[in-house]
Amino acid sequence: MSFANSKSADLPDLETIRAAARRIQPHIHRTPVMTCASLDEMAGARLYFKCENFQRCGAFKIRGATNAIALLSEAEARRGVVTHSSGNHAAALSLAARARGATAWIVMPSNAPEVKKAAVRAYGGRITECAPTVAAREAAAQEIIERTGAVMIHPYNDARIIAGQGTTALEFLEEVPDLDFILAPVSGGGLLSGTAIAAKGVRPQIRVIGCEPKNADDAFRSKASGRIEPMEHPDTIADGLRASLCERTFAVIRERVDEVALVSEEEIVAAMRSVWERMKIIVEPSAAVAAAVALSRKEDWQGKKVGVILSGGNVDLEKLPFKPAASAR
Amino acid sequence: MSFANSKSADLPDLETIRAAARRIQPHIHRTPVMTCASLDEMAGARLYFKCENFQRCGAFKIRGATNAIALLSEAEARRGVVTHSSGNHAAALSLAARARGATAWIVMPSNAPEVKKAAVRAYGGRITECAPTVAAREAAAQEIIERTGAVMIHPYNDARIIAGQGTTALEFLEEVPDLDFILAPVSGGGLLSGTAIAAKGVRPQIRVIGCEPKNADDAFRSKASGRIEPMEHPDTIADGLRASLCERTFAVIRERVDEVALVSEEEIVAAMRSVWERMKIIVEPSAAVAAAVALSRKEDWQGKKVGVILSGGNVDLEKLPFKPAASAR
Repeated sequence: MSFANSKSADLPDLETIRAAARRIQPHIHRTPVMTCASLDEMAGARLYFKCENFQRCGAFKIRGATNAIALLSEAEARRGVVTHSSGNHAAALSLAARARGATAWIVMPSNAPEVKKAAVRAYGGRITECAPTVAAREAAAQEIIERTGAVMIHPYNDARIIAGQGTTALEFLEEVPDLDFILAPVSGGGLLSGTAIAAKGVRPQIRVIGCEPKNADDAFRSKASGRIEPMEHPDTIADGLRASLCERTFAVIRERVDEVALVSEEEIVAAMRSVWERMKIIVEPSAAVAAAVALSRKEDWQGKKVGVILSGGNVDLEKLPFKPAASAR
Repeated sequence: MSFANSKSADLPDLETIRAAARRIQPHIHRTPVMTCASLDEMAGARLYFKCENFQRCGAFKIRGATNAIALLSEAEARRGVVTHSSGNHAAALSLAARARGATAWIVMPSNAPEVKKAAVRAYGGRITECAPTVAAREAAAQEIIERTGAVMIHPYNDARIIAGQGTTALEFLEEVPDLDFILAPVSGGGLLSGTAIAAKGVRPQIRVIGCEPKNADDAFRSKASGRIEPMEHPDTIADGLRASLCERTFAVIRERVDEVALVSEEEIVAAMRSVWERMKIIVEPSAAVAAAVALSRKEDWQGKKVGVILSGGNVDLEKLPFKPAASAR
C-alpha cells in the first residue's frame, strides 16, 4: 500500500492498530454491538451499532488518547501534554493523562458545550479558553508549549491517535466479521482514517463510508476535488464534527474511504431521536450523523449488513433539539 | 409458604414463574445487566442494573402481558382482551394480543403521556379515553366487556401478570446470583410482588426493597399499617407509579418484601439525570425511582451487591424534567 502525498511512516498500518488495541485494552471498555429491529425496518438493512457512547468518557476518543499517552517517554510525561479540542478529545486526554500522573493542558473554544467543559474539569484537565477560530486555538496552544514544554497531542493529526481510533473498527469486525459497510462520522478524520485502515486491512471487500453534515462538508468536497478544502464556518448541531481534514487523515480518506455521505440538520435530529426512542440509548448529534446516513439509503443496502459507529453520547441534557414538530404523531 | 389474607391459588409460586419464563422466552428480549463505575462510586456499593428499558415495548410489562395472552383459551382469544392502564401495560398488551391475532381494547386516562398513547396505537390497540379516576376507567372497561365479551387483563391484579413480571428477577439472579438486595419500583405491585416471589424463592437471604415516590406512597403506608391504604391523588413525575396496591399484590408485599423506601421528586429527577448522563441510557421516571433509592443509601450497603430493576424507558422527549438548576456545575 502507498499514500501518494504523505510518508507512510506517519500513518499507522493494520499491525500498528493491532498493537494499539493490545496496549489500550486494559484501560478502555470493550463496548457492545447493539441491534434494533425497528431501526432495521426503517433502514431496510440489518444494522449493527458499535456503541462507543458507552465508552469511557462517553466517546471513542479515549482510545486514541490512551494510546498516545502510553507512547510518551517518561521525560515527556513529566512535562505534560497539551491539545485543543471542542470536547471529547479534551476530556479523554485529561483522563488518560491523569491515569499516568501527567498534566493535561486543554485549549477549548469559548463556545464549547458546557457539559464537555465540565467533563474536562472533572478529569483534572486545565482549561484555557480561546476564541473559536483556528488561529486563536493554535496561538493559545503554542503559548502553553513555550511556557511548560508540554507535548502536543493533536486531536487527529497524529499517527498515535489515528491508530487508537482504528481499534474501534477492529473490535467491531471481531464481533460482526461479515459487515458489508462500515459507517463512521468524519470531522478531522482521525476516526474515519483509522477505521478505513483497520476495516480494509481485516476485510478488503468492506465499503467504508464517511458521514458528514451538509453544513460542515469539507471532507465531501475534499474527496471530490482531490485536495483539502477547508470549512471556514461550519454551522451544524453536530458539535464534534466542525473540524477540517489534515494532510495525514486526508491521505487515507482519499485512497481508502469509498464515499463521504452528507445529511441535513433535520436528518441528524430525526436520526438522533429515532436512536433515543427506539434503542433507548443516548447518542450525541455527531454520532447521529452516521445513524442518519444508515437510515437514508434503503435503496443501497437491501439485505446488507451495515455497521454504524455510534461515536459518542455526551450531550447537554438542558439543550436538546427535540421539538413537537419533529414528532411522528 | 402461606398468605394470610388471600388464597395461594390466586398467586404464582416460584414454579409458576419458572413456567412463565419458559412460555414467554421466545417472545421477549433477554435484557442485559449493566454496571457503571461512577454510579457505584455515588452509591457506595456495587450496583447492577437490569435493563428492562431495552425490553420489547420499552418496559418489563411485555412479560406479564405475553404470559397472560399465552394462557387464554382459543375462545377467549377470539373475544379479545381489555385493560385500563396509564401506559406501558397498555402498549404491551396491545403488542402481545396482536401477536396472537386478538383485539386489545385499551382504556386510558385522558392525561396519559402522548408517547404512550402513540405506542398503543402503533401496536394496534384500540383506545378508549376516560377521565383520570378509578371509577371512570372501571366503567369504561365494563362497558367494553358487556359490548364485546372481551377478557379483562388487569395490569397487576392478576396471577398471570404477576408471574410474568417475576421472570425479570429470575433472569437477574441467573446473571448475578449473589445479589444482596434487589430494588424494584412499586405501583400496583405486579412487578414488586413477582420480584419478591421469584427472588426469595431462588435466594431466600436476598432483601427485597420496593421503591416508591413520596408523593405516591400508598405501598409504604400500607406496609406500615398492615392494610391497604389507597392513594387518592398521587402527584409524581413517575407516571407509571400512580396506581395503588390490590389485595393480591399486597398479600405478597406484606409478607415477603422487606421494606418500601421513599424518594422525593427531586431525588427521582436527579437519579434519572445521573443514569442518562453516566450510563448513556434512557430510563423513564418510574425506573429512576429505583435508581434514586440505590443512590441514597450509602450507609446501608457498604460493599454490598445491589440489583436495580430499571423498569422502562418510555419518555416523552419533548417534556423532559432537566433544568439548569439541577446541573452539577
